[in-house]
Amino acid sequence: MTRTALYAGSFDPITRGHLDIIERASHMFDSITVGVLVNNSKVPLLTLDERMDIVQKVTSHLSNVEVECFGGLLADYVNQKKFSAVIRGLRATTDFEYEIQMAQMNDRLFTGDTETIFLMTNPEYSFISSSLVKEVASLGGDVQGLLPGYALDVITRKLRNRK
Amino acid sequence: MTRTALYAGSFDPITRGHLDIIERASHMFDSITVGVLVNNSKVPLLTLDERMDIVQKVTSHLSNVEVECFGGLLADYVNQKKFSAVIRGLRATTDFEYEIQMAQMNDRLFTGDTETIFLMTNPEYSFISSSLVKEVASLGGDVQGLLPGYALDVITRKLRNRK
Amino acid sequence: MTRTALYAGSFDPITRGHLDIIERASHMFDSITVGVLVNNSKVPLLTLDERMDIVQKVTSHLSNVEVECFGGLLADYVNQKKFSAVIRGLRATTDFEYEIQMAQMNDRLFTGDTETIFLMTNPEYSFISSSLVKEVASLGGDVQGLLPGYALDVITRKLRNRK
Amino acid sequence: MTRTALYAGSFDPITRGHLDIIERASHMFDSITVGVLVNNSKVPLLTLDERMDIVQKVTSHLSNVEVECFGGLLADYVNQKKFSAVIRGLRATTDFEYEIQMAQMNDRLFTGDTETIFLMTNPEYSFISSSLVKEVASLGGDVQGLLPGYALDVITRKLRNRK
Amino acid sequence: MTRTALYAGSFDPITRGHLDIIERASHMFDSITVGVLVNNSKVPLLTLDERMDIVQKVTSHLSNVEVECFGGLLADYVNQKKFSAVIRGLRATTDFEYEIQMAQMNDRLFTGDTETIFLMTNPEYSFISSSLVKEVASLGGDVQGLLPGYALDVITRKLRNRK
Amino acid sequence: MTRTALYAGSFDPITRGHLDIIERASHMFDSITVGVLVNNSKVPLLTLDERMDIVQKVTSHLSNVEVECFGGLLADYVNQKKFSAVIRGLRATTDFEYEIQMAQMNDRLFTGDTETIFLMTNPEYSFISSSLVKEVASLGGDVQGLLPGYALDVITRKLRNRK
Repeated sequence: MTRTALYAGSFDPITRGHLDIIERASHMFDSITVGVLVNNSKVPLLTLDERMDIVQKVTSHLSNVEVECFGGLLADYVNQKKFSAVIRGLRATTDFEYEIQMAQMNDRLFTGDTETIFLMTNPEYSFISSSLVKEVASLGGDVQGLLPGYALDVITRKLRNRK
Repeated sequence: MTRTALYAGSFDPITRGHLDIIERASHMFDSITVGVLVNNSKVPLLTLDERMDIVQKVTSHLSNVEVECFGGLLADYVNQKKFSAVIRGLRATTDFEYEIQMAQMNDRLFTGDTETIFLMTNPEYSFISSSLVKEVASLGGDVQGLLPGYALDVITRKLRNRK
Repeated sequence: MTRTALYAGSFDPITRGHLDIIERASHMFDSITVGVLVNNSKVPLLTLDERMDIVQKVTSHLSNVEVECFGGLLADYVNQKKFSAVIRGLRATTDFEYEIQMAQMNDRLFTGDTETIFLMTNPEYSFISSSLVKEVASLGGDVQGLLPGYALDVITRKLRNRK
Repeated sequence: MTRTALYAGSFDPITRGHLDIIERASHMFDSITVGVLVNNSKVPLLTLDERMDIVQKVTSHLSNVEVECFGGLLADYVNQKKFSAVIRGLRATTDFEYEIQMAQMNDRLFTGDTETIFLMTNPEYSFISSSLVKEVASLGGDVQGLLPGYALDVITRKLRNRK
Repeated sequence: MTRTALYAGSFDPITRGHLDIIERASHMFDSITVGVLVNNSKVPLLTLDERMDIVQKVTSHLSNVEVECFGGLLADYVNQKKFSAVIRGLRATTDFEYEIQMAQMNDRLFTGDTETIFLMTNPEYSFISSSLVKEVASLGGDVQGLLPGYALDVITRKLRNRK
Repeated sequence: MTRTALYAGSFDPITRGHLDIIERASHMFDSITVGVLVNNSKVPLLTLDERMDIVQKVTSHLSNVEVECFGGLLADYVNQKKFSAVIRGLRATTDFEYEIQMAQMNDRLFTGDTETIFLMTNPEYSFISSSLVKEVASLGGDVQGLLPGYALDVITRKLRNRK
């Protein structure tokens, strides 16, 4: 029996914390799909192509990880692809409250046996979020070490061109 | 001595969780006023008339519940109507932090003996919020069971006409 | 229709925070029963008689408050006396998690329409607990202002005699 | 590649909440080992044999679930058996804080790629813990619906004989 | 050795809670700089000059407190001025989660030995935030006691002129 | 003006997390007193002399840190020695709730201007507590990296002799 898992997000950009979750999840499932969200309400810093390109590059060492994009309701995408699990990283209490709500809503919407499972974020990365990284980087702060190298290059170039 | 309570909110739309709180509160007070907020900063999906109509329909089996609308400061409305209590549903820790702040601010603003009281949301409904229900419904997800039947009908029609 | 509420605890001893909750609840119900727990697992500092005596003295200005003791399961006591509500004070997030568990368990055990309702502890008293007050007092710390005057007298005498 | 998971605990007794986690986890792994803790510091109500017997009976419909007992350090047991994952149920914020500490400590102690993964407890069962169930049952409260049928029978008999 | 601390914020307007933190911090450091944030993303109610003027007036009794404004990244400002510490007030759990993230990010960005330190907000002021005060005041609610006298005067005048 | 701070605890044994707090605090104050608690209710693994000896050894590189022991009420000790501040490390939400209660109680008991200040525990050490380290070590788990070298030696010898 093949077990597949989805790790979904905006990845605007993917952080070291995200990558750590993907690497750890890749040992537990036959395949991991990183699902890049197409149409989130907030305007992203990076285009969908840029976000997918970065995720592909920084996960290329993981043979059972593939990158896709999806729009609309996460549960529809899950139901269509019949993932065994949806993976979420947990960083903090506030995350936890939100995540428990989403997990319970999705549990109603999943038509199969898909489970939402949670991995604790490595404490080293627990203070990183894409939005905080972008905020700091856009004010000229050094975010080296918080992003995979290739993501850092793209973000740095993007922010330089913006000015 | 007559004891009256206010249960206030945007009710855009009223959920099963809200209705559960109203039903439970109706046993404890001589009358419950469901106060529908007129001018909240966010643009609601439903008009004030629609929201009031739905609340009225789905609470019509509760003889001591009446529906009103109000604008401005909740405390002004409370002070004018001399409610014995303001009822709030508690779902989660994050709710709790916000609610304790509002309760303490209102305690300063209430001129009478009005108390803010909290009922724990039924765990079955603890993951529902009007905004999550709207988000899921607008993406085509099935929200049956999360809204009272009449609310579901109105929302479904509204979202269909929108497209 | 008469509405009655139970406020239960060990009251070893009753604190200003407890008394504040009782005073505020007394405006909302026809009668409040302060239920002093007989057989809690921990050995109390004060005897049941002392605890009941103190509660009676410090609530004597509230005409609709009576003091009783009870043992065994709270829900059995509630079901027998048919209280309309069980009142709980909420101080902090950790309280909240425990309280939500107890409220949901009791909801299963209550045979009537009894509801658990929560009042936020006055922030002035939010750091007081009977056990912290006893710990500080037993080490000679000044707990004036944290206990009603009569409770302070009894505790002070008790701790002096102990040495 | 075979993926195995451990779900460990005292199971004194196993609750419906525990069983729900086991059932959901059984879809995600090739095999689930329910590890019953031998020597926990608190004296259990049920003997190790009783606890294992109950777990075996109530999971007998799940073909890929086996029951074992273990003592000492969980990480030693995990390292020896090379489980792919350790499964934990999450009920509430306070759980979460404790669990994140244990997960991070275990992450240091695991010698292989074992991951701690979390499943959200079904809200219907989120207020149940073995200790609360035992406390209520020992005071004569009705805990039907909170325990699997066979566990309820054993506990009821045990508590009756105790008196 | 001279020890200096920064207390930064929008101060739109400074509240009694803020002032309480400044007064308490002023005993622990040789000098406190109140750093008023220039360009926050949200449009403030008060201009930078108004906010700085109010902070200066209400801290004029504290001889080792000075007021400055700054823009851009807090860490850049801290690194340039070589503050010994950055002071933050903690009000509630949700605050705490956010603050721990910011403290850990800043710890990476600080080039010297600057530490982020936290003082617990006085419980009397724990429900006050600038935004809640503004919301209540703009709806005509009485916020006397929540703001220093001079801040209240400016806000009241500003809101009156707005209409 | 000389500013002194107290960092108090059982230190049974001192962990890397504790030492990290002491090192960071030592930059902010003229002197840090590490106060080792004499008579805590739980029986410690290490004697008072062992605990003080370890703390002295592992802080010997910090010229402005001294080690003392104290019994009774922390506030009495603080009032007698007139510390400018009491330093506490914050690890998690549950800590936070407890700490805010103690800080507010102590604020009443401090006769001078002593403030309780909090430093966030380094995320790398946020899952360590003395009791968890002892539990793991006593079951034979490897706690290297969680304790300063000398503390690890003493604990290891102590636990070996115990068997």
